[in-house]
Amino acid sequence: MRIVRYDHAGHVRSGVLIGDAVHERSGGPIVAALREVTLLAPCDPRVVVCAGKNYGEPDGTGRPKLFLKAVNAVTGPGSAVRFPPDLRRLEYEGELAVVIGRTAHEVPERSYRDYILGYTCANDITADDWRADGQWVRAKSTDAFCPLGPWIETDVDDPAALHIRTTVNGRLVQDSPTKDMIFGVGELLAYVTRWITLQPGDVLLTGSPAGVGPLSPGDVVDVDIEGIGTLTNSIV
Amino acid sequence: MRIVRYDHAGHVRSGVLIGDAVHERSGGPIVAALREVTLLAPCDPRVVVCAGKNYGEPDGTGRPKLFLKAVNAVTGPGSAVRFPPDLRRLEYEGELAVVIGRTAHEVPERSYRDYILGYTCANDITADDWRADGQWVRAKSTDAFCPLGPWIETDVDDPAALHIRTTVNGRLVQDSPTKDMIFGVGELLAYVTRWITLQPGDVLLTGSPAGVGPLSPGDVVDVDIEGIGTLTNSIV
Repeated sequence: MRIVRYDHAGHVRSGVLIGDAVHERSGGPIVAALREVTLLAPCDPRVVVCAGKNYGEPDGTGRPKLFLKAVNAVTGPGSAVRFPPDLRRLEYEGELAVVIGRTAHEVPERSYRDYILGYTCANDITADDWRADGQWVRAKSTDAFCPLGPWIETDVDDPAALHIRTTVNGRLVQDSPTKDMIFGVGELLAYVTRWITLQPGDVLLTGSPAGVGPLSPGDVVDVDIEGIGTLTNSIV
Repeated sequence: MRIVRYDHAGHVRSGVLIGDAVHERSGGPIVAALREVTLLAPCDPRVVVCAGKNYGEPDGTGRPKLFLKAVNAVTGPGSAVRFPPDLRRLEYEGELAVVIGRTAHEVPERSYRDYILGYTCANDITADDWRADGQWVRAKSTDAFCPLGPWIETDVDDPAALHIRTTVNGRLVQDSPTKDMIFGVGELLAYVTRWITLQPGDVLLTGSPAGVGPLSPGDVVDVDIEGIGTLTNSIV
């Protein structure tokens, strides 16, 4: 099932997408055609917690590297991300995003599926120069630096059996299976919820594979995850 | 005016405290006596952005040092903060907290007051060992690491004319005027909102003065700010 959040004639609602029709709920009446609504980020998280460096060589600590994105950064599919003034290098990072379905505290790794509503695509937009601040607040949480979407796909049996492809202006720049994550979704959720209680709608970003690179104003970035969909955003 | 958020017989509401009476609103009817309600964090932020190292010697960068606290950490006056297992050193940090009153984007420093609802006390609880993670997610955002309260005081003319006193089990450990901040409230709000749009109810922590130190289970910490009130929490 594809869960969407959308603006239709000025009203923000959630619904279910079947083909090109937005339904009020699963089995419910059609509200509008997909082309008649503006899709928004498919959830409205209060916490967005992210794993850094979760593909490639492990760093030897045996622990995920976590950081936060503040929710002012959350934006939807199709939206424009402003290239900040006074910045040299802005980067895309295509990622699998986990959307929490029920209160998650000290989740046992083996039962992680019980706490997940579904999965969506994320672009962990990063102002590379500003990592030098130490804590990555400007670097990761500037307005619109967290596009999510286009919808939440609830029918994902195994989040390690997906494939992420990111393109910039149609050129393939990231192309990796999610089985290459160092810490899988279950391990990440168990780790994070030892300290941080997540609530329904909260989001866990699972890290970006090889191929991260720069963006310029005018670029269009697609983050496509097999079996989920494609998140498209432009840089302005 | 003192704005409170409280639980009364299982219902969470906001109101105004006058003497020992909780009113529905300013000039409105009395709902309950203060002793009949449980005070909660006086606002329900979506973003909590914090200035680190904002008292003492400037670091020479000319910029505030920012970090985030995730909102799972927000808790109210009177609540207990759990000393995490596997941690050696937990610290209190008494701070002045700014509560945003209207959407704040690219706020001019001189007009910062227009964007502020009022002020409250914060305890920026920190797991010192876990700063070594790099990004301070566990160190700063573990559940209940952000006590706020006891209420929002809206009648503060000059946030640089206040005085912070923190006690642990009645022993004075922090005792500083807010005029000693390196970056004042107006500078901080102007800086943060160049990148991060804050919404009503969001919170800006302004840094902790000298005297930060360790906590043990059983300790009771008071953060008292002249003209605002006292935030009391226990460590368990």
